[in-house]
Amino acid sequence: MQPVDIIIKNGTILTMAGQAGIMEDSSICIQGDTISYIGKNPDRPDSATKIIDAKGGLIMPGLINGHTHAAMSLFRGLADDLPLMTWLNKYIFPVEARMDADFVYTGTLLACAEMIMSGTTTFCDMYLFEDEVAEAAFRAGMRCLAGEVLYDFPSPSYGPLEKGFEYTENLIRKWRSNPLISIAVEPHSLFTCSPQLLIEANEMALKYKVPLIIHVAETLSEIAEVKEKYGRRPFEHLEALGILGPHLIADHCVHLDDMEIERIAGNNVKTIDNPESNMKLASGISPVSKLMEKGITVGLGTDGCASNNNLDLFTEMDTAAKLHKIETMDPTVLDSFTVLKMATIEGARALGLEDVTGSIEKGKKADIIIVDINKPHLTPMYNPYSHLVYSARGNDVSHSIINGRLVMENRQLLTLDVDDIISSARKKAMQVREWVG
Amino acid sequence: MQPVDIIIKNGTILTMAGQAGIMEDSSICIQGDTISYIGKNPDRPDSATKIIDAKGGLIMPGLINGHTHAAMSLFRGLADDLPLMTWLNKYIFPVEARMDADFVYTGTLLACAEMIMSGTTTFCDMYLFEDEVAEAAFRAGMRCLAGEVLYDFPSPSYGPLEKGFEYTENLIRKWRSNPLISIAVEPHSLFTCSPQLLIEANEMALKYKVPLIIHVAETLSEIAEVKEKYGRRPFEHLEALGILGPHLIADHCVHLDDMEIERIAGNNVKTIDNPESNMKLASGISPVSKLMEKGITVGLGTDGCASNNNLDLFTEMDTAAKLHKIETMDPTVLDSFTVLKMATIEGARALGLEDVTGSIEKGKKADIIIVDINKPHLTPMYNPYSHLVYSARGNDVSHSIINGRLVMENRQLLTLDVDDIISSARKKAMQVREWVG
Repeated sequence: MQPVDIIIKNGTILTMAGQAGIMEDSSICIQGDTISYIGKNPDRPDSATKIIDAKGGLIMPGLINGHTHAAMSLFRGLADDLPLMTWLNKYIFPVEARMDADFVYTGTLLACAEMIMSGTTTFCDMYLFEDEVAEAAFRAGMRCLAGEVLYDFPSPSYGPLEKGFEYTENLIRKWRSNPLISIAVEPHSLFTCSPQLLIEANEMALKYKVPLIIHVAETLSEIAEVKEKYGRRPFEHLEALGILGPHLIADHCVHLDDMEIERIAGNNVKTIDNPESNMKLASGISPVSKLMEKGITVGLGTDGCASNNNLDLFTEMDTAAKLHKIETMDPTVLDSFTVLKMATIEGARALGLEDVTGSIEKGKKADIIIVDINKPHLTPMYNPYSHLVYSARGNDVSHSIINGRLVMENRQLLTLDVDDIISSARKKAMQVREWVG
Repeated sequence: MQPVDIIIKNGTILTMAGQAGIMEDSSICIQGDTISYIGKNPDRPDSATKIIDAKGGLIMPGLINGHTHAAMSLFRGLADDLPLMTWLNKYIFPVEARMDADFVYTGTLLACAEMIMSGTTTFCDMYLFEDEVAEAAFRAGMRCLAGEVLYDFPSPSYGPLEKGFEYTENLIRKWRSNPLISIAVEPHSLFTCSPQLLIEANEMALKYKVPLIIHVAETLSEIAEVKEKYGRRPFEHLEALGILGPHLIADHCVHLDDMEIERIAGNNVKTIDNPESNMKLASGISPVSKLMEKGITVGLGTDGCASNNNLDLFTEMDTAAKLHKIETMDPTVLDSFTVLKMATIEGARALGLEDVTGSIEKGKKADIIIVDINKPHLTPMYNPYSHLVYSARGNDVSHSIINGRLVMENRQLLTLDVDDIISSARKKAMQVREWVG
């Protein structure tokens, strides 16, 4: 019998596997990268190399950020409360045009520190210089589905579009057998990508059996533009191009008509809800409860820090649960268990990672966090799901294990030097200030 | 010259007085309960009894929770995601019917611990057994505007209504010259209080020159009920009873027509927005940007923990800023400075405490918090207001001073024993479980 590397004991386990599975006073054993035992009586509990005392806290799957632009952490608070086009044209685009690989690497490390410290173990990224994103995530010890953004214009990262496809193919080859990093093909949106680009991107995704990820139906102006250009609504357009399918992850999905919802459901397209970003940019509210009624997989994302302005999935869950109640004027929709699934097992399903992560099950990779509940704002506790969604905050997470590796212990990051990261990020911010004048 | 008791140095001061006042590398001196100096060159800085190093953090007025039911912290997560009437009839009412003074005292201490630890220094409370609320707040060292809830039914606290008026009068007399506690007259709502009750309550408020506080226009069913009973909308009804005025604090104000908004503005009625509770109970969205356009004072509240489920005003600010952008589909409304004012100086104005607290000004009482910004999720910092609203969390607050007294230092509560409070709250929760079966 193989020795146990890590045992987590003395906590309440929320498996998030199938129906609500709450196991009190239970332990989890980890061998290498894998969960080897869950229950009350682990074999030789003291023989583990590392014993973690959860101190009566909640032991749960690490959270999954279904859509973000990690390096935009360096634009946190740079420009808020502005009309969308002012925000983009005066701040975001001019800065992105001057960014380099090191900028993205620094910003992604900063984001990884924030994400681990707020309970996220997997994130799905779309940005420029994604090889640096993957490198930073790997250094942080995070699970990451990364993809280089593709659009009709030249990119500060790879130059002309054909180089973008090359860049993506290189990413796929480079990271193919990495235990933490996987790659997707990521055209930006229907209003920045020609039909030809979208078709080629889809062919590449199918060829390599990787996800195809795109922003869809985020704003009303996007719908108007797509309609004017192609005479169709966004999901009709995607269908006409032949690229609806279970490998497609559609981010945002704010403005949908019933026909489009049928198309998403019928083709098993995955969707990611980004409630806080959609609120902050005044984009609208995704009809998430309707999507779920149709059996559509909905994950949860924070979007980038420039439109949120944080990567805390706990507060994002809180907002999701509340926003969709207001959207429907029904306090019973998106109950806390449903919302916690969006950020765990359903998020994993959306990213095609449901066999790897998103729940605590024997044989799955060990992506596990511990939430410390010995605090006034988490007292008393009648229902752990409610607490995690409505009361907890990212900084209530005490420990994080990703792929069997302890990456945070008692809120100390073990894979990254936080002071170094903060100091490097502040230097990059000085550049940003110069760039925007 | 009097000696300085506390000096806070090495931080960026956000005064929240008048237009944006940001003072970098500045210090604050406190003598007794009062701010005696703000600036770069305090006199004899080392002579202070206590020197607090803000370590480059943000020094700002303590936050003001404009509307809560503190003791409902003991119902946190007891019942969520339910239709309003199930929630009230099956859970909240049966438990409240069995509550006693000790229950409310314990719940309020728990809430005070949570509030101080998340940066709140003043709260406005409406509940039963309010003398215990006042006692708990005083023990915690918090500033509190308290009022016993009055309605047509017998109360578990004081019994029949006439005793409620007596109870309130006794509160006013008992706490009249207390430096932290003040008292309001608090009829519950238009659908639980007869016109006669409302008129008497108003007379008492005017007689003692204290605020009159009431839930108004929270739900559509309330509007319908008031219309059916009295043939008028809520603010028309209040006007007909002669009780609109600058001493009236109207909590919620979700469903208002333009005529009512004119009445609120014309009579200088104060309002408190409770965005998270209004979302969670699917009550609706208060037209806050419209109220502000008319010059109406709008404070911010969390409402009770049973419908939120936390007392963190930082995340409440975040939600307020985002929710009202979605309500208006305009990303420029409720910018971060405006929202921070709701939780500080405007909140103080709403409660009639603007000469005492809500901003950092020489001569005002010292209600001051320090926010630690040396964290990944608060890096980099281009705009402190943005960070406080969109990125910070309650547990980023490191220090709290209320009325010149240091009540939290490096996240250690100095006025309350947190372990004791958690343990007492857990015992009360066991009772609650029995009560709801």
